[in-house]
Amino acid sequence: MKIRIAILGYGNLGRGIECAIRQNDDMELAAVFTRRDPAAVKVVSGAPVYSADQLLQKKEEIDVLMLCGGSATDLPKQTPEYARYFNVIDSFDTHANIPQHFAAVDQAAREGGKVAMISVGWDPGMFSLNRLYANAILRDGSDYTFWGRGVSQGHSDAIRRIPGVKDARQYTIPVEAALASVRACENPGLTTRQKHTRECFVVAEEGADKARIEKEIKTMPNYFADYDTTVHFITQEELQRDHAGIPHGGFVLRTGKTGVHGEHNHVIEYSLKLDSNPEFTACVLTAYARAAYRMNQEGMKGCKTVFDVAPAYLSAMSPEEMRAHLL
Amino acid sequence: MKIRIAILGYGNLGRGIECAIRQNDDMELAAVFTRRDPAAVKVVSGAPVYSADQLLQKKEEIDVLMLCGGSATDLPKQTPEYARYFNVIDSFDTHANIPQHFAAVDQAAREGGKVAMISVGWDPGMFSLNRLYANAILRDGSDYTFWGRGVSQGHSDAIRRIPGVKDARQYTIPVEAALASVRACENPGLTTRQKHTRECFVVAEEGADKARIEKEIKTMPNYFADYDTTVHFITQEELQRDHAGIPHGGFVLRTGKTGVHGEHNHVIEYSLKLDSNPEFTACVLTAYARAAYRMNQEGMKGCKTVFDVAPAYLSAMSPEEMRAHLL
Repeated sequence: MKIRIAILGYGNLGRGIECAIRQNDDMELAAVFTRRDPAAVKVVSGAPVYSADQLLQKKEEIDVLMLCGGSATDLPKQTPEYARYFNVIDSFDTHANIPQHFAAVDQAAREGGKVAMISVGWDPGMFSLNRLYANAILRDGSDYTFWGRGVSQGHSDAIRRIPGVKDARQYTIPVEAALASVRACENPGLTTRQKHTRECFVVAEEGADKARIEKEIKTMPNYFADYDTTVHFITQEELQRDHAGIPHGGFVLRTGKTGVHGEHNHVIEYSLKLDSNPEFTACVLTAYARAAYRMNQEGMKGCKTVFDVAPAYLSAMSPEEMRAHLL
Repeated sequence: MKIRIAILGYGNLGRGIECAIRQNDDMELAAVFTRRDPAAVKVVSGAPVYSADQLLQKKEEIDVLMLCGGSATDLPKQTPEYARYFNVIDSFDTHANIPQHFAAVDQAAREGGKVAMISVGWDPGMFSLNRLYANAILRDGSDYTFWGRGVSQGHSDAIRRIPGVKDARQYTIPVEAALASVRACENPGLTTRQKHTRECFVVAEEGADKARIEKEIKTMPNYFADYDTTVHFITQEELQRDHAGIPHGGFVLRTGKTGVHGEHNHVIEYSLKLDSNPEFTACVLTAYARAAYRMNQEGMKGCKTVFDVAPAYLSAMSPEEMRAHLL
């Protein structure tokens, strides 16, 4: 029998999960749930679409519920609410609020006897795992995380809120010289400006003052003021033609010393280069859905993060196949 | 109370573990066991040195026993033998024999109520983990592993067996063009020759026929014949000065496609650049010693690989600290 997955929220992440399920033979998409009018939501796979209000009625038909809402307002409410009734996965990424999110979800999942995986994706997620492994191995060392080259939705939105801006796309770019210095075990102390640059492609409204827009972007506190920022004005057609994708990625590095006198240097590096940020995130969530289902089948319950999941739970292979082909 | 680690076999790996323990506050080196005359073994830390015959007598003073022997003859015998009495870690790396090693160790560890971790290190080990994670995430894709630039002991030994060779050091080097093609998602089908080159530094005995030695190296089946091999003749002094280290490393990549029509490419890459292969391997073994001890304290037993270990067991941090600082 296949693992029956349901999706709550059919945006970029939900669509990505629908695609990912089609690449996993041991899973099926049971249903999509939406807060919009279900009749207005067209899904690629032909799975049934229901109103979010119907979720509890369909409880017996769902093994794992994928929560595809946002971290700001959706997930803090949804994950504890549904962890009582379903094995759930979310991609909660507001780092500062993870302890309180964990506590709320853990209580609900324990009471419901379910497994709830929070903060799954690539950062938090795969990047976190690599930070943990590298820290456990190289005890005397330094950590570095670089993001990009990729689209930051938050920074693109910030530009779009400036008067006179019709549309915008912002790329976060790691500074090559900083990466090179880390890889050379120079242990650089890096400022915000030394780690990343920001490149903005902006469509201005007709007659807008481009010099003012550029200045407003470059001096915007938190978002751009601490970075070397480049602004390009382009047409809406150019934006659609050249910047329609949602690529992202990044690098997690740890450098460290070993030996009787710390005489040997080591570099551990993990990197991602992703054409589609939401589709890759969806693939990670889907692998953890398999783990959540299996762990719950074994009697586990409560809130889990990627740190709590033995890697074998993620793979559809048998333990014997894994040892033969991957070890 | 600290985790009491014992080392069996005080070669490069054993010495590396001794160094690694000094970087982990929650561990102590209880003793070193050797098959040589204990009086002849000088350890850096001042820990007691005993004969391997005394291991069972010291059973109550040891939480985890690190088996530092070789995969060819030592570990197939030692790991099942000691897994009955100790939580053990080994770095068994003969891929083809892992199933049978696993079975023998699993039986002994279950009967003894102990946890036995086999095939720990970086390949098998961290590279295996990265193959598993990447395969679970990107279902439609291709795997690539490259090794080097690093010293291959087996290939260095093979050269030293040629008549007229006094000493030798062999480096395995990944081919940059092949790496670039993989990273560009070109899914290349790569022959042995296209993936790695081999570079040999050879000290010839006085009067030896260098042309014959070079030819014997380059045509040696399995070891060199399938590779583009370069041979440099150098002096013993140059070998000691420039090639005394044991660096290694490599790259694990998986590329894959997602999307409704597989229209998006993704690259997951993990790499290591190690000044000291045995010291890094020792650090990995030491982290898994912590995991073995904790898992056994929780009542687990039997043979485990890196696939079976939830990452949180590896870190000395509390779950709350991990979520706050690494997630």
